[in-house]
Amino acid sequence: MSEFSVFTSVVQVRPDDIDMNQHVHNAKYFDYVLTARYDQMERCYGMSMEAFLERGFSWVVRASYMEHKRPLRIGDTAVVKTSVTEIRERGVKVSFDITKEADRKTVAKGWLDYAMVSLQSGRPQSIPDDIIQIYSV
Amino acid sequence: MSEFSVFTSVVQVRPDDIDMNQHVHNAKYFDYVLTARYDQMERCYGMSMEAFLERGFSWVVRASYMEHKRPLRIGDTAVVKTSVTEIRERGVKVSFDITKEADRKTVAKGWLDYAMVSLQSGRPQSIPDDIIQIYSV
Amino acid sequence: MSEFSVFTSVVQVRPDDIDMNQHVHNAKYFDYVLTARYDQMERCYGMSMEAFLERGFSWVVRASYMEHKRPLRIGDTAVVKTSVTEIRERGVKVSFDITKEADRKTVAKGWLDYAMVSLQSGRPQSIPDDIIQIYSV
Amino acid sequence: MSEFSVFTSVVQVRPDDIDMNQHVHNAKYFDYVLTARYDQMERCYGMSMEAFLERGFSWVVRASYMEHKRPLRIGDTAVVKTSVTEIRERGVKVSFDITKEADRKTVAKGWLDYAMVSLQSGRPQSIPDDIIQIYSV
Repeated sequence: MSEFSVFTSVVQVRPDDIDMNQHVHNAKYFDYVLTARYDQMERCYGMSMEAFLERGFSWVVRASYMEHKRPLRIGDTAVVKTSVTEIRERGVKVSFDITKEADRKTVAKGWLDYAMVSLQSGRPQSIPDDIIQIYSV
Repeated sequence: MSEFSVFTSVVQVRPDDIDMNQHVHNAKYFDYVLTARYDQMERCYGMSMEAFLERGFSWVVRASYMEHKRPLRIGDTAVVKTSVTEIRERGVKVSFDITKEADRKTVAKGWLDYAMVSLQSGRPQSIPDDIIQIYSV
Repeated sequence: MSEFSVFTSVVQVRPDDIDMNQHVHNAKYFDYVLTARYDQMERCYGMSMEAFLERGFSWVVRASYMEHKRPLRIGDTAVVKTSVTEIRERGVKVSFDITKEADRKTVAKGWLDYAMVSLQSGRPQSIPDDIIQIYSV
Repeated sequence: MSEFSVFTSVVQVRPDDIDMNQHVHNAKYFDYVLTARYDQMERCYGMSMEAFLERGFSWVVRASYMEHKRPLRIGDTAVVKTSVTEIRERGVKVSFDITKEADRKTVAKGWLDYAMVSLQSGRPQSIPDDIIQIYSV
């Protein structure tokens, strides 16, 4: 997906994720990606979301894009891979793909564009150099 | 339901509330009651949740009970009635019933037992007299 | 947004839509758009989702794109406008924008690309002429 | 909890489970219990929800009760224990308790009362003897 590392998280499919079409509800896939990022921030980058908040920063989604290929169903397990694909002065772009654990076929893929903001003001913020380092793996 | 006033709110059923059984998902009915209470705190009691938070208080659920009678489906609208049924030193009990707008038949009913807590410490808190007045309508 | 009609629905913000950032959770905006489309299919196009299902058709999301401009908070109300912007042999593209009712400022905007599928097989399906007519308003 | 077996499932806490109070949203605990039951039906009782549906049966919640002791937060993991505590002609009662994995302290506990229904008619149904056997472990 990119010159940066690709990290992998496993996410449970819960019965409340299933909608009237007997599939995981479309919007839930964003929550699966968010779950993977939280896990990977702590486990893979070594800087948890809590650590960002303690430094007075937060990440907000500016834009997102997703393609749906095949649905997940009850009993399935999601494998979510994410990778930073671009680091800008004030934000990062993260690509993801979600596969079904049982057959490794693609369920969905896309990207999220995040801006770094100040927790206090809510305004966009330049990413400090040490955080650029952390994400440049 | 009680010696105190009964207030009524109308809550939209959204497609994402419907689960794999083609009904509103059980746990969502608690969210319909929560929506009604927020609406009624501001509109009927004249003290919004924000006003509680500004005074350094919050409400947490200690216990809940619900009976399910008939399901709501996509296209239905929920009518949620709530009423304070008990005011204690450190909490209130709120009864609710949810009906389907189209036929006024009962969908679910039950109660929620709330404790007042300090926002700072998270610990139980005696309810101030003026707030007891506000809820004694 | 397009040569086709723009329709408007009002969607309640519920307390359970608010996430740890005190804003409506990003993924919920897709549910607000879905709620608007269900409302508009029945009220504006005169063919409800149920009517599609009865004819053996369903709509699935192939891709989506969203930009987030400003958050909604508890107490706000969402105004969701949608419009068909493209009709293809086997799908339609729907643009949306979400504004805050109080100040009509943009909260989010984007598009959803839907494929028509057969309920039985789950496979892509040519859109029948009468349905193309219904959406060509 | 009962004369019947107690089974245990581990449930991920997802960022979208956290509400504006920075805790797992109250109503989500029902989804954690539901997730545990689905897992245990297949893994522990040897009859998955799918197997029930294939035989033309489903389970619906008639009533529920929950006490909240301590909240779960982002980064926590839930351990959900459930046990059948009563088998009636047309339903079963299931007790649960949820603990935080890190310290095994109680988060919530309560029960769910389920009725067996016919998938076709939606009406209450006597539980077949072989299913009573399956749950009598």
